[in-house]
Amino acid sequence: MKSICGVEGVSAAGIKEGKYGLALIRASGTAAGVFTTNRARAAPVEVMMERMRRGTLDAVVVNSGCANAYTGERGYRDAVEMCEIAGGALGLDAESVGVASTGVIGRYLNLPLITDQCGRVAPLLAHSADAEDAAARAIMTTDTFPKHALVETETFAVGGITKGSGMIAPNMGTMLAFLYTDAEVEGPVLQDILRTATRRSFNRVVVDGDTSTNDVAFCTATGAAGKVDRAELATAIEAVCRDLAVQIARDGEGATKLLEVTVRGAPDEDAAAEVARTVVASPLVKTAIYGEDPNWGRVVAAAGRAGVAFDPYAVSLSVGDTPLVLRGEIVADLVQAKAAMRGSTVAFDLDLAAGDGLATAWGCDLTEKYVEINGKYTT
Amino acid sequence: MKSICGVEGVSAAGIKEGKYGLALIRASGTAAGVFTTNRARAAPVEVMMERMRRGTLDAVVVNSGCANAYTGERGYRDAVEMCEIAGGALGLDAESVGVASTGVIGRYLNLPLITDQCGRVAPLLAHSADAEDAAARAIMTTDTFPKHALVETETFAVGGITKGSGMIAPNMGTMLAFLYTDAEVEGPVLQDILRTATRRSFNRVVVDGDTSTNDVAFCTATGAAGKVDRAELATAIEAVCRDLAVQIARDGEGATKLLEVTVRGAPDEDAAAEVARTVVASPLVKTAIYGEDPNWGRVVAAAGRAGVAFDPYAVSLSVGDTPLVLRGEIVADLVQAKAAMRGSTVAFDLDLAAGDGLATAWGCDLTEKYVEINGKYTT
Repeated sequence: MKSICGVEGVSAAGIKEGKYGLALIRASGTAAGVFTTNRARAAPVEVMMERMRRGTLDAVVVNSGCANAYTGERGYRDAVEMCEIAGGALGLDAESVGVASTGVIGRYLNLPLITDQCGRVAPLLAHSADAEDAAARAIMTTDTFPKHALVETETFAVGGITKGSGMIAPNMGTMLAFLYTDAEVEGPVLQDILRTATRRSFNRVVVDGDTSTNDVAFCTATGAAGKVDRAELATAIEAVCRDLAVQIARDGEGATKLLEVTVRGAPDEDAAAEVARTVVASPLVKTAIYGEDPNWGRVVAAAGRAGVAFDPYAVSLSVGDTPLVLRGEIVADLVQAKAAMRGSTVAFDLDLAAGDGLATAWGCDLTEKYVEINGKYTT
Repeated sequence: MKSICGVEGVSAAGIKEGKYGLALIRASGTAAGVFTTNRARAAPVEVMMERMRRGTLDAVVVNSGCANAYTGERGYRDAVEMCEIAGGALGLDAESVGVASTGVIGRYLNLPLITDQCGRVAPLLAHSADAEDAAARAIMTTDTFPKHALVETETFAVGGITKGSGMIAPNMGTMLAFLYTDAEVEGPVLQDILRTATRRSFNRVVVDGDTSTNDVAFCTATGAAGKVDRAELATAIEAVCRDLAVQIARDGEGATKLLEVTVRGAPDEDAAAEVARTVVASPLVKTAIYGEDPNWGRVVAAAGRAGVAFDPYAVSLSVGDTPLVLRGEIVADLVQAKAAMRGSTVAFDLDLAAGDGLATAWGCDLTEKYVEINGKYTT
């Protein structure tokens, strides 16, 4: 197993038919969720923000191809109806079924298709590597590979799947991510752990700076493994979130390289994260990465507009193991720097010399392919 | 005349040799300036923030090819030296010469080249259409056309030139812009007028969301036309700034279309501007414009993440004359909408129904060419 079926008590299934996919995941337990901060929240997000208050889930149903976003009251009713369809297919109370959608904004759900797909997917539910992979593939849109992560400790496991490739600048919520653990944990604790893990992982990925209307991350704890150490659980959940977040960045639309920016020496962790996010989001940094052009001045320029106080002439910057700036002094050997940008991962380390804050953010290069994918996505 | 030489008392000259250009503009008068808010300010910006306190200028010297940004104390001394070189060539006190630079960050100025170019450009100073065009061309980097604007009233004139194509998300300051008027006006009044005009023009252009280290706009008032009505002067300066700003957007790196987004019904003007800027900056909106894809949901999604309070189901949206959403109801005819995106300007009008705030922002589409230009800009 590579993800959710590595967790006791989780079964999954999914199908993908052209643009339209549907996944079902069955697992009962304490549940927590984080949601997009975009003001134009999708209907399934509205539904789940209410439903997650009860603090438990028995299943989730997810469709790809239509975001059910900006669809008003009809969209809300459709999202509720989608839970009922899935609940019917699974023999569960609709209120205990979570719902998420991803795809084009401003289009209504095709409920007959969802009904048909639920009817065919439900009998396929299984606790297997194939099943978790089918679910991960069913929720893909422009993703080029399914995204799995699993952390196993001696006493419990945490697994997750996610999707996301474009419209990626999560804020508080994230793209679609579904995490499971067999640890036994109280709802408020799980919510707290998930919020922190999300802040340090999904919320530090920027593909294009656009925050989706549909971002959600759910974590369900089945309790099958009994009580566990809280810190250990938090570490495992954060590790799974980070693993999935890095996969999203690497699979950014049109990306050829992963961009990893670590900012240290910031006034605090939030400031470090803000600078790191600003650098990975900069179109000029992203195109330089693509061109393997050691135009490191763009990194300093992006950091300078992040709204964080620091002295530009105190900073140190390196790419890979190659120093570029040492406490404000330019020491860049541009031939070496170019060589350090050749691999599939380009890592900058920026020390602001303004405190103890540390954070890493992930993104990708900006290529002609991103333009091609997004110039022709809907119609 | 098309710009600065349409103003009494202004003479100009410039040369462009490969990547390296130099312009001189001679005009004595009351002067005002606005500057980048990027924390990593370029050396010439640092110098000018101090010098503008005296409130007058006799000339400006501008080079392209090297930004003299992130160059520390040596960069600062070089910028001061550049004023002295220009002052020497023009027979002026160096303290009365303004300086600006644009180009690659993290490289030192080539002062022998600047000396040589100043020596050759100074004798060419003239009050002519050719001269203003030579100056406008000398300051270009990735710009594809020189940018001129001129407003003539019965009693006075305002002219300006600017450059800017990439790293465009001005904030408080702008790219390089040089404005002249023969109106007689006190320094603080001119500063106030310029700040407001900049806020409503250059600060509403986003090409790629990267705020330059070198943004500046200067306005010099020669006084040759005598005292004028303050409101009329403000209107003329704002019109020139807006004309230049739109030219920058249209000449965005790799752009094929101008994107104009008007937001009305916002809580106030600043909120309207924030939403408009967020929409024109959205990579997903920009790529949809390029693909002439009426994926208008991306406009609503971008507006939703701008941090401004509104009800997504109260908004109205149109592209050109084609309504897409009317008070929250989807009325889009996608064939008509696609047709409305075919011209060289694509204009969205978004009514948030949340107040009286109105603002327009300008940007451009995102194309493969932007990636190509910026993947290979320095080395």
